[in-house]
Amino acid sequence: MNVLNLLFGKPLATSEERGEQVGSLAGIPIFGLDALSSAAYGPEAALTLLIPLGLLGVDLIVPITTAILILLVIVYFSYRQTIGAYPQGGGSYTVATENLGAGAGLLAAAALMIDYILTAAVGISAGVGALISAVPSLQKHTLGLCLLILIILTIINLRGVHDTGVAFMIPTYLFLGTLLIIIVVGIFKALASDGHPTPVIAPPRLPPATAVVSLWLILKVFSSGCTAMTGVEAVSNGVRAFRDPTVKNARLTLSIIIALLIILLAGIAFLCRWYGIGATDPGAAGYQSVLSQLTDAVMGHGTFYYVTIGSILLVLSLSANTAFADFPRLTRSIAINDYLPHVFFVRGRRLLYSWGIAALVTLTGLLLILFGGVTDRLIPLYAIGAFLAFTLSQAGMVVHWFRNRALGWRLRAAVNAIGATATGITTLVVLVAKFVDGAWITALLVPSMIFLMVQVKRHYRSVDHDTTNPEPLSLHKIEPPLVVIPVDRWSRLSEKALRFALAISNDIIAVHVESGLGDQSICDEWEQKVSEPLRRAGLPVPQLVDLKSPYRYVLGPVLDFVLEQEKANPGRQIAVLVPELVVTHWWENLLHNQRANLLKLLLLVKGNQRVLVINIPWYLHGH
Amino acid sequence: MNVLNLLFGKPLATSEERGEQVGSLAGIPIFGLDALSSAAYGPEAALTLLIPLGLLGVDLIVPITTAILILLVIVYFSYRQTIGAYPQGGGSYTVATENLGAGAGLLAAAALMIDYILTAAVGISAGVGALISAVPSLQKHTLGLCLLILIILTIINLRGVHDTGVAFMIPTYLFLGTLLIIIVVGIFKALASDGHPTPVIAPPRLPPATAVVSLWLILKVFSSGCTAMTGVEAVSNGVRAFRDPTVKNARLTLSIIIALLIILLAGIAFLCRWYGIGATDPGAAGYQSVLSQLTDAVMGHGTFYYVTIGSILLVLSLSANTAFADFPRLTRSIAINDYLPHVFFVRGRRLLYSWGIAALVTLTGLLLILFGGVTDRLIPLYAIGAFLAFTLSQAGMVVHWFRNRALGWRLRAAVNAIGATATGITTLVVLVAKFVDGAWITALLVPSMIFLMVQVKRHYRSVDHDTTNPEPLSLHKIEPPLVVIPVDRWSRLSEKALRFALAISNDIIAVHVESGLGDQSICDEWEQKVSEPLRRAGLPVPQLVDLKSPYRYVLGPVLDFVLEQEKANPGRQIAVLVPELVVTHWWENLLHNQRANLLKLLLLVKGNQRVLVINIPWYLHGH
Repeated sequence: MNVLNLLFGKPLATSEERGEQVGSLAGIPIFGLDALSSAAYGPEAALTLLIPLGLLGVDLIVPITTAILILLVIVYFSYRQTIGAYPQGGGSYTVATENLGAGAGLLAAAALMIDYILTAAVGISAGVGALISAVPSLQKHTLGLCLLILIILTIINLRGVHDTGVAFMIPTYLFLGTLLIIIVVGIFKALASDGHPTPVIAPPRLPPATAVVSLWLILKVFSSGCTAMTGVEAVSNGVRAFRDPTVKNARLTLSIIIALLIILLAGIAFLCRWYGIGATDPGAAGYQSVLSQLTDAVMGHGTFYYVTIGSILLVLSLSANTAFADFPRLTRSIAINDYLPHVFFVRGRRLLYSWGIAALVTLTGLLLILFGGVTDRLIPLYAIGAFLAFTLSQAGMVVHWFRNRALGWRLRAAVNAIGATATGITTLVVLVAKFVDGAWITALLVPSMIFLMVQVKRHYRSVDHDTTNPEPLSLHKIEPPLVVIPVDRWSRLSEKALRFALAISNDIIAVHVESGLGDQSICDEWEQKVSEPLRRAGLPVPQLVDLKSPYRYVLGPVLDFVLEQEKANPGRQIAVLVPELVVTHWWENLLHNQRANLLKLLLLVKGNQRVLVINIPWYLHGH
Repeated sequence: MNVLNLLFGKPLATSEERGEQVGSLAGIPIFGLDALSSAAYGPEAALTLLIPLGLLGVDLIVPITTAILILLVIVYFSYRQTIGAYPQGGGSYTVATENLGAGAGLLAAAALMIDYILTAAVGISAGVGALISAVPSLQKHTLGLCLLILIILTIINLRGVHDTGVAFMIPTYLFLGTLLIIIVVGIFKALASDGHPTPVIAPPRLPPATAVVSLWLILKVFSSGCTAMTGVEAVSNGVRAFRDPTVKNARLTLSIIIALLIILLAGIAFLCRWYGIGATDPGAAGYQSVLSQLTDAVMGHGTFYYVTIGSILLVLSLSANTAFADFPRLTRSIAINDYLPHVFFVRGRRLLYSWGIAALVTLTGLLLILFGGVTDRLIPLYAIGAFLAFTLSQAGMVVHWFRNRALGWRLRAAVNAIGATATGITTLVVLVAKFVDGAWITALLVPSMIFLMVQVKRHYRSVDHDTTNPEPLSLHKIEPPLVVIPVDRWSRLSEKALRFALAISNDIIAVHVESGLGDQSICDEWEQKVSEPLRRAGLPVPQLVDLKSPYRYVLGPVLDFVLEQEKANPGRQIAVLVPELVVTHWWENLLHNQRANLLKLLLLVKGNQRVLVINIPWYLHGH
């Protein structure tokens, strides 16, 4: 327990729970981190696919970014409305379930679970990517560094999220500050040099073009670039955390976040074109992230560079952390509706949904290991989940307005319909464009997860049906059980068992298994030590049954006998008394056969409603 | 079960056990295999240590072999007498325990266990060594081949030893036949050429001498060579297996085995000197076993060569097999005296002591892996165990004669005393000479094993003391227990548990844990569904206790409550009824908390003599 306390903090009483409410400025790091940090991998993901086009690719980043920004603005207006309509927090799962039905809710649930796991995996791997750009010698430890960060995040999160607010603030503003400075300085230099600025440190030369531009390629680049939009739904999920006036504060926060994201994405795109910065081959030696090249080109390789890269690493790791906050809440909501195992809504010692965290860590770790911790390989799986959730959320909002028909519902429905259509089309584009590269994994996972969740629900429903008891206690035919005691020899254990049996029932059968290996019958001893004293006291004498076992099995004959008795006495309960030696040290168990435990297990597996097991422990050394 | 049957044969009934009795000729392969096969690695082990002496080393093999043969003859006469004195089978463990006491018996037990494990390991590794000599490309698979043979032997032995007699006969006689032909032909060629025969295929040139001869080296060579004597005790262990006249047949068999062994060892020594054959570096490329070189030199590299090597491989593997026959019997004898866990005398489905075989296989496999399957590295550990067992056996015989004082006992005691002295001195020589090379492992293992065996005995004795019951059944104060039922909500499970409780006792307490997470109290429902009907029927109403749990733990409060009740009711038994959901498929367990199982475990660990657990299973889908 002490190690647990040290690592994860002392257990918290239920009464220690408290709400924490934030204003719009404090809300930016908490809810904007995920969205803003996407700027660190979204443009890079797009540029990586443009490598084969050489210089032309770098030119193309501006129009493609423009398309993404238009989509972003549409989604922004859409989510503004969700915030107003669901001030208690409107995650895609809730909105889809309430408005589109359970099926759409499950689809959203599956999409979101995948999205959160990928948020964690991509955040960590992109952070490590930034680190590798600064310290290339760490390249060979990519996966190890990823897993290290995952472990650190796990420990922090198992301690609880009470104090993470402040921890978020500094790196987020550092990240924003450094990037904005780079963008402002870069644009200034570019304008001053008539669009041809001289880089402080020249980026690696762009490779010669090896492919020609095609619509297919543009779609793929757009799909990858869309990962820059992931995380914008965070504010609408957490409206409840804002200070009064809740909705207004939340909307203001969302607006600021989207505005900042637009500045970052547009700034990065323009600077890349002006400075001629393209992506380098990820996972290969000499890899340098786009933001690292950009910082070098605009600001040089000094202290500012390292502060920038450090803040990127921190922000990306912390953006993974938002998955730690959201995934367990999501699985809890799903589990409350019986679609996931109920452990997901059991609160751990620190008032957290520990099982949700455990599931997230396991799956994220698995993903990082499978893909070697390289962001570029994870990107194709990523956007699908996020955009599917966007689409379902917006579509749900459309239905919501149709049902509510409040003032101005038509306009609102139209805004959300545009959002749903735009994100829906994007989902399809991403699915098709990235199918071969990895989107097929997501496409397979979603229906499998839905199938599993439906099975889980079905199980819980059947358990509920089987165990719910509308009737009051029935007093019909309450009678003592028929007691069966397996007896090895006359010992203190068998005496204890027999005394207990005599206390609860008059129908007792002792069974003894003879394996024909020279063990003498216990009949005489039984007669003398058991039957005789009972007879003298005028009490009923238990029957002793000798079972033959030609193959030396002991448990089989006992089990068969119990089941026979169960058949022979319909409606009667059979209580099997299992005397068991309890040793003081675990290793002493090696010196005793585990027949008692095996018998208990067999009776449970092969038995039925009328067979009960009574465990009679015998503690060695009388403790 | 079907896979088991296919691999290991159908289970055998106890009544299917039968004795198999052999004559002296059939006895040679069965009891001589281990001893005779030692000729394949004993001389080689000695020659390996003589490599640094170059040509001089090969000359020295003859006098050293002579010393070993003298020791062998002494041991022969010693064991002849053991056969007469212990016609029911006189293994070292039995002889030492009976005549020298339990301490010496444990020493012999430890020595023999080590000896058998090394017999298996050395037999297998030397067999693979022969194979590698014939097919050098297999060298890199040494360990893999060793483990493969171990697995094959395990499967054969788990089927049972009924048919192994015939399987032994052919390879043993093939081995003897080919080696004797080589020796006769070799001696003939040597005599015909005046002691300078021309090899058909010249052996690898002996390396130049890099060391000078010393007493220390001679002692080490002698110690290694002594491994050629391992296995000669087999006949005296198994006298009972011989046909009438038992003792005469057994002695004749022993005589023939020893005579053959002498011929083999002497023959190999002389041929090595005449042909100038030394050992090659084992475990290194270009390794060729001494017998392989010898066969090449005398007979050439034709069919005869491959038949010889094949028979050596088979015989060595089968000599490992004798450990499979003897080790489980030994551990059984030790376990019957309570010095080893009792599983070692439980007979498996094929009437074998399966746990003994399992222990042997595990330890042999471990040894092979640790030493890379190279015979030469195992040899230093080997001889100690065997010679320690020889010594204790002979010393025991001396005491035996002193006690019996039958006709001619003085002479017999003298013979055994010479044997004991000679083998005792050899044990010391081997221990000292081989200490650094590995004998220290054996020297550490023996006392550790004795310590463990004494602890095991102590435990069994204390269990026996605690559980043996000389008294007849006490009828004093037999009363129904106080029943505690943990209740979650009113369900069919709780109804079943409550009905059972009402059937066996009038004192019932239901406990409900409130964790303050919004679960409503069950008081009202309890009153209406339980208390009310009972009151109406005029039956005692069980108490409902609400336990508060600020930290949301459920099991802790229940456990504490049970232990409190136990303290508050001295002398009373507390029966805890644990309702448990039994699912149809194992994976359904993932959907339910394992509280029932954890509670049972906690009650067992933290409970005491007066706390019992009654398991009330509820089978889903009413099966």
